Amino acid sequence: VSQKRTVFFVSDGTGITAETLGNTLLTQFDGIEFETQTLPFVNTPDRARVTTDYINHLAESTSQRPIVFSTTVSDEIRDVLRYSQSLFIDVFEVLAPPIERELGRKSTHTQGRAHGVADVHRYESRIEAMNFAMEHDDGSTTRELQRADVVLIAPSRCGKTPTTLYLALQYGIFATNFPLTEDELDVPQLPKALRGLEAKLFGLTSQPERLAQVRGERRPGSKYASLAQCAFELRQAEELYRRGGIPSLNSANMSIEEIAVSVIQEKALRRR
Amino acid sequence: VSQKRTVFFVSDGTGITAETLGNTLLTQFDGIEFETQTLPFVNTPDRARVTTDYINHLAESTSQRPIVFSTTVSDEIRDVLRYSQSLFIDVFEVLAPPIERELGRKSTHTQGRAHGVADVHRYESRIEAMNFAMEHDDGSTTRELQRADVVLIAPSRCGKTPTTLYLALQYGIFATNFPLTEDELDVPQLPKALRGLEAKLFGLTSQPERLAQVRGERRPGSKYASLAQCAFELRQAEELYRRGGIPSLNSANMSIEEIAVSVIQEKALRRR
Repeated sequence: VSQKRTVFFVSDGTGITAETLGNTLLTQFDGIEFETQTLPFVNTPDRARVTTDYINHLAESTSQRPIVFSTTVSDEIRDVLRYSQSLFIDVFEVLAPPIERELGRKSTHTQGRAHGVADVHRYESRIEAMNFAMEHDDGSTTRELQRADVVLIAPSRCGKTPTTLYLALQYGIFATNFPLTEDELDVPQLPKALRGLEAKLFGLTSQPERLAQVRGERRPGSKYASLAQCAFELRQAEELYRRGGIPSLNSANMSIEEIAVSVIQEKALRRR
Repeated sequence: VSQKRTVFFVSDGTGITAETLGNTLLTQFDGIEFETQTLPFVNTPDRARVTTDYINHLAESTSQRPIVFSTTVSDEIRDVLRYSQSLFIDVFEVLAPPIERELGRKSTHTQGRAHGVADVHRYESRIEAMNFAMEHDDGSTTRELQRADVVLIAPSRCGKTPTTLYLALQYGIFATNFPLTEDELDVPQLPKALRGLEAKLFGLTSQPERLAQVRGERRPGSKYASLAQCAFELRQAEELYRRGGIPSLNSANMSIEEIAVSVIQEKALRRR
């Protein structure tokens, strides 16, 4: 029998840490349907009281008490939330003390540090990386391509663009991508624009069936989406990677996050 | 005196949860320089042993033991990592037991759930949202604009594009954006393409000085980047939002994450 549980991610900031952590923990429990809600910017005692009332309201209208994942740096706010009718788990409360003991100093209890503009320099470099990724997407310009930390290459629809944007947004890495078109794949050879950038290249490949499916959603029944064409392009791309000594990855069953982290690891990129 | 500490984010998956959690906790400690390293895909006992050796190597070559944030679902792997010379904090070890007691069942200890392609449907809808955001960026097409959950509008360089991409990548929200150009701002009136979509609109504004600085980095000395032009565009945009009853936000001192979460909250958008 499937249970249903209400789960809250509560934070004095964006709630992103509470969501990430809570969702990760919830993936480990099967057979239960979780109804999640994020309650961000709970950064005053008044808002904490309203939030607690809301949690209590939900606890009373369902048969089971909610689970609350909280990242609240203020003791005052946390003490209001704690007395909600819930299993209350606060990250700072549980994990700050061992770190405080290890470092021999108290945590600062400063709000909005994790996902605010805490480090302006670091933040602006992330935005710059994102703009770089957007401007250069899919080979739209080769201007300043040498600024890239990594250039993803692949046939169309192997995951280049989402991975590029994730690398930029999440890690501030100057990533971009360049398509391998039929002209290059026929031979197979590296696009002219990429010569001299060999050390920055990373190739993506896929499974023909998977690629045909993804392309078919865009252009059903086209040659572009045919299994034969997909198989040909992937084979030629893999040959190109092999000849050029370009590290590569089969992205067919991987998420953007897994591809991105694998690229970082393989190319020893620095997270910013 | 500034200390320096080595911190590892270790995971059998991407390490994204360990990074997010660990970085959040570290923001609460001032006066210490943290050297962070992510060690992802530690998903076999062999890799755990190599990882432990590496951590021990670093512990011995520095005067202080490292801090390790781990998200490892396997007890066997975790037991190898635990005996590294470190302050070892594992998320599942600390936080799974209270949730297990609450739910009356054991966690499944399944690897790669948090940031893999666990839920194919949810994953594909995120990718679709991302493609939608890319195709419609900056008003490049008005095709299927009614599919959008939210349309961000603003003068150039107020944060529309990064926020849109973040909403799509992180939350699978169908977000897009549309620029307010001088023509529309002169009057001020809503771009024709957006009529009928009023309920989906969210406006961004900024501070004139901040906008002039951001624009100046792109086109130094231009009219576009002048303080007078920025002040004019922002004033007109704010007037347009007011007249149209369009909710809006001053993004000048906010991060992408904070803007995105505020938009979700204001428009009551559903995270996918």
